[in-house]
Amino acid sequence: MKMVDVGDKARTERIAVASARLRMLPATQEAIREGRIEKGDVLAAARIAGVMAVKRTPDVIPLCHPIGISGVEVVPEFVPEGIAFRVTVRTVERTGVEMEALLAASAAALTVYDMCKSIDRGMVVEQVQLELKDGGRSGRWARGG
Amino acid sequence: MKMVDVGDKARTERIAVASARLRMLPATQEAIREGRIEKGDVLAAARIAGVMAVKRTPDVIPLCHPIGISGVEVVPEFVPEGIAFRVTVRTVERTGVEMEALLAASAAALTVYDMCKSIDRGMVVEQVQLELKDGGRSGRWARGG
Amino acid sequence: MKMVDVGDKARTERIAVASARLRMLPATQEAIREGRIEKGDVLAAARIAGVMAVKRTPDVIPLCHPIGISGVEVVPEFVPEGIAFRVTVRTVERTGVEMEALLAASAAALTVYDMCKSIDRGMVVEQVQLELKDGGRSGRWARGG
Amino acid sequence: MKMVDVGDKARTERIAVASARLRMLPATQEAIREGRIEKGDVLAAARIAGVMAVKRTPDVIPLCHPIGISGVEVVPEFVPEGIAFRVTVRTVERTGVEMEALLAASAAALTVYDMCKSIDRGMVVEQVQLELKDGGRSGRWARGG
Amino acid sequence: MKMVDVGDKARTERIAVASARLRMLPATQEAIREGRIEKGDVLAAARIAGVMAVKRTPDVIPLCHPIGISGVEVVPEFVPEGIAFRVTVRTVERTGVEMEALLAASAAALTVYDMCKSIDRGMVVEQVQLELKDGGRSGRWARGG
Amino acid sequence: MKMVDVGDKARTERIAVASARLRMLPATQEAIREGRIEKGDVLAAARIAGVMAVKRTPDVIPLCHPIGISGVEVVPEFVPEGIAFRVTVRTVERTGVEMEALLAASAAALTVYDMCKSIDRGMVVEQVQLELKDGGRSGRWARGG
Repeated sequence: MKMVDVGDKARTERIAVASARLRMLPATQEAIREGRIEKGDVLAAARIAGVMAVKRTPDVIPLCHPIGISGVEVVPEFVPEGIAFRVTVRTVERTGVEMEALLAASAAALTVYDMCKSIDRGMVVEQVQLELKDGGRSGRWARGG
Repeated sequence: MKMVDVGDKARTERIAVASARLRMLPATQEAIREGRIEKGDVLAAARIAGVMAVKRTPDVIPLCHPIGISGVEVVPEFVPEGIAFRVTVRTVERTGVEMEALLAASAAALTVYDMCKSIDRGMVVEQVQLELKDGGRSGRWARGG
Repeated sequence: MKMVDVGDKARTERIAVASARLRMLPATQEAIREGRIEKGDVLAAARIAGVMAVKRTPDVIPLCHPIGISGVEVVPEFVPEGIAFRVTVRTVERTGVEMEALLAASAAALTVYDMCKSIDRGMVVEQVQLELKDGGRSGRWARGG
Repeated sequence: MKMVDVGDKARTERIAVASARLRMLPATQEAIREGRIEKGDVLAAARIAGVMAVKRTPDVIPLCHPIGISGVEVVPEFVPEGIAFRVTVRTVERTGVEMEALLAASAAALTVYDMCKSIDRGMVVEQVQLELKDGGRSGRWARGG
Repeated sequence: MKMVDVGDKARTERIAVASARLRMLPATQEAIREGRIEKGDVLAAARIAGVMAVKRTPDVIPLCHPIGISGVEVVPEFVPEGIAFRVTVRTVERTGVEMEALLAASAAALTVYDMCKSIDRGMVVEQVQLELKDGGRSGRWARGG
Repeated sequence: MKMVDVGDKARTERIAVASARLRMLPATQEAIREGRIEKGDVLAAARIAGVMAVKRTPDVIPLCHPIGISGVEVVPEFVPEGIAFRVTVRTVERTGVEMEALLAASAAALTVYDMCKSIDRGMVVEQVQLELKDGGRSGRWARGG
């Protein structure tokens, strides 16, 4: 078990985009849309949770490098089966930010679960996945292409 | 946005079981089974990551209560499409541990992703979901029943 | 320097209320009210920051006891000179939650500062103070009373 | 809500100076000066708390970038109404350290509050404010100038 | 790998005492005694570091339970070969605090190392060990007894 | 007490190697070798604990700079009196990683202590020491040389 040495890699701009979706009952989605969740503004909480999870990634993923982060954006969107989250993380470092983006997408979805679980305990986080990465030695990778 | 007051709830034994699965290429599963992942023992890392994620839950899920934890177990299992994780968390507190179990299952799956991503970037975390909770005012809930 | 032993104190319900205010230019308050701050929903971020700061208190205040928290509420309110924050923290423990409430009020105010500093760097956090505590051996204390 | 992208900014030397003051009863100041506080050396604790709070800033201020820090100094000084704190933070990064300095000044003041609250619960943290920043695209800013 | 379930153990008063010693050059000890270390008051920093390390223990020791802590005291003492640290930790929980005491003793010693390393890089932390534990199912244990 | 300013130092490759040893009963070593410790795979846990402790160093050692880390390796080895740990940490920063390596070695040893303490409470962490550092203004230092 080791944190792989990246000291000889170049410091370059890197980006990662990850997504997740939270499947829920139609009534739950409706309660969120109409601001009827007692714990507060669900989507605002999810967005902040995503940003903060990026900063917690080296604490949660054991072999992840602690690095500087240039920017994070978490975009939630209502979809027929619930809410989809798309997270973009950017850095200028010697290693990529895929794990940061994936953990942020998970954290955003779980934050919604937490705030709505008293009315819909069966919600499921589905499809936490990398959509795109670019920059660094291994270059560009995009899902489905 | 508030952390709901649980001060008037009773301190009782509570349990939560959550699961997640990581879909991967057959060759990736084979490399893990045969111990050929350069970063080290993937399943040991995933189990520890799951236990430690339980302790990070109040940092990652904004409205989660910080509570004592009695025990955690993370069990990975090879399944046809990859690896399934089952996490059990126990406490004797005024609130449940569903979020702890769900975050631990996510962290275990993402730790495997991190250690194997150089050979299979397309892996997907699927079906992060609560399987069972018991204890507390709302009592027992089990998926599918 | 020591963390004072509270092992012989009773586990009782305790509450602390703290407040802070952030003085700002009228134009800054207006920009917040009208949702024109580029970084996002300022008051939602401040409320979450306050809740999360409660959980970070033993990390930031060296001699503070790590304890369970029952509930937290952060209420921002527009006042003539800017924004006032009122934080209520509850616990059932052997020690009080004054520091948690005070740090949360500071963190909420500083979060607004952070999100608006590009348009008003001169904002000042004023009057971070305890308003009320109750419960525990030393009993009730209220400001001005 | 997003962590603004700073990837295209230059890595330059940046400094921020912030201050705070803690108003207290004359008897409290006297007890601190004479080393009669039971919990220990109050000013030493406040200085360390300030340095450590700089490192906790991205955990407490949600949209703050996690960055490297070059140096921190926390200087407490007795003033007629209590204690004044002056914090200087330096970095060589793509974004400034105003929030780090402001949180450190708050944490130093609150640490004194914590250590003395049993004899003076009415102490107030006043005037947490930026005094100076320099470096980076927006250049120099000084209070009152 | 699991965090062993302690939910059926009784909540009782527990104590642990651990010690460590830091061997150093006579000139280094003298510089500390005379307050000539540029980074500041070495023993004050070590005492605070010890207290704070108790609170970080579940983050550093993977299978450690997160628990409430009643009190901590860190006592440094000059001995012929350098400095000896004695740490006492108390709790009223379902599990002991041996790891908290051991990590605190290590952290106190390493903090002195950090502050003096520019003048004595060869210092060695020796004999980090449990001296005493009491309370809980396994009862009292004392070194050498 | 201050975090010394390193802003004018060059960003260069730096390495630190530290070691620690855990003295134990022969029967304890045998139980570890034969995988009979109930809590799980002891050496895997120790290796991960060491890597994660590197990332927690600025939280535990008060005046330590928060920096990026390029790589970490923790190597445990059975020796006649127990287990020896050797940790290598690399960075490309303005300050060295001695404290990171020393804390990681301590954390790895204490993790083994934690997992085996129910059968051997008398184990002692001995000789936590720097073996080598290189890079930066002060150049190379090696124990015994």
